[in-house]
Amino acid sequence: MPATLFGDRTNKDQVENGLTFAPKFDDRGLIPVVTTCAATGQVLMQAWMNADAIRKTIETGEAHYFSRSRQQLWHKGATSGEYQIVHDFRTDCDQDSLLLVVEQKGGKCCHVGHPSCFYRSIPIGHRTDGLIQMTPAKD
Amino acid sequence: MPATLFGDRTNKDQVENGLTFAPKFDDRGLIPVVTTCAATGQVLMQAWMNADAIRKTIETGEAHYFSRSRQQLWHKGATSGEYQIVHDFRTDCDQDSLLLVVEQKGGKCCHVGHPSCFYRSIPIGHRTDGLIQMTPAKD
Repeated sequence: MPATLFGDRTNKDQVENGLTFAPKFDDRGLIPVVTTCAATGQVLMQAWMNADAIRKTIETGEAHYFSRSRQQLWHKGATSGEYQIVHDFRTDCDQDSLLLVVEQKGGKCCHVGHPSCFYRSIPIGHRTDGLIQMTPAKD
Repeated sequence: MPATLFGDRTNKDQVENGLTFAPKFDDRGLIPVVTTCAATGQVLMQAWMNADAIRKTIETGEAHYFSRSRQQLWHKGATSGEYQIVHDFRTDCDQDSLLLVVEQKGGKCCHVGHPSCFYRSIPIGHRTDGLIQMTPAKD
């Protein structure tokens, strides 16, 4: 990959207000990415990208991640057919996080079988003096 | 903090399908969290929590994070008044990511002055043979 793909991060104002993409990777070369559904706005999953996953996502318009468990590029849907077609791809103010807005082919994002990976809610307003019990999420 | 707050993660089926909250922290004791707006569904920010931030968020119903730059608990809004009132708090299938659905007091989440931190879009479908130039996001 050419070294010129990403901008440098020396100028904080450029990183926050400029239009040159200058992502911050962690010490494993990864950056977190949040993926939402274009049709519903629902948060589908949270995963990770490396530089190559970013490049492949931009070039193909299909979501590519870096699988930490398999330690390799992960073209989501390549084995299941449940591709994610990218409608929008964004970065945040300090460019240390990414957002993908996608059309989820097949309708189910999560490997457990739910439309979204976030299918359990943690109770709010309770004392925390023992194991926290969750509830199935409302949607 | 009592050691009994979080479940153990030895059983994959329990982690994925059980209702005991058993978050996975990274080697810094942190877990990523995505925050969305309850009213619009918009992704506002991505940040991090440690165990104490999780406990404070549950007990108070206001978003608490862990600031990596300041290396301390961050009660969002404590200095600006722009608190985040938690409507829903979720974890994902493998419990290594969190989701907060909030009412953003003051309407602006991002320190740069935008409603959302994700105010720039990365172009899709282009060749990646040079610095990537972004565009202002549509919303």
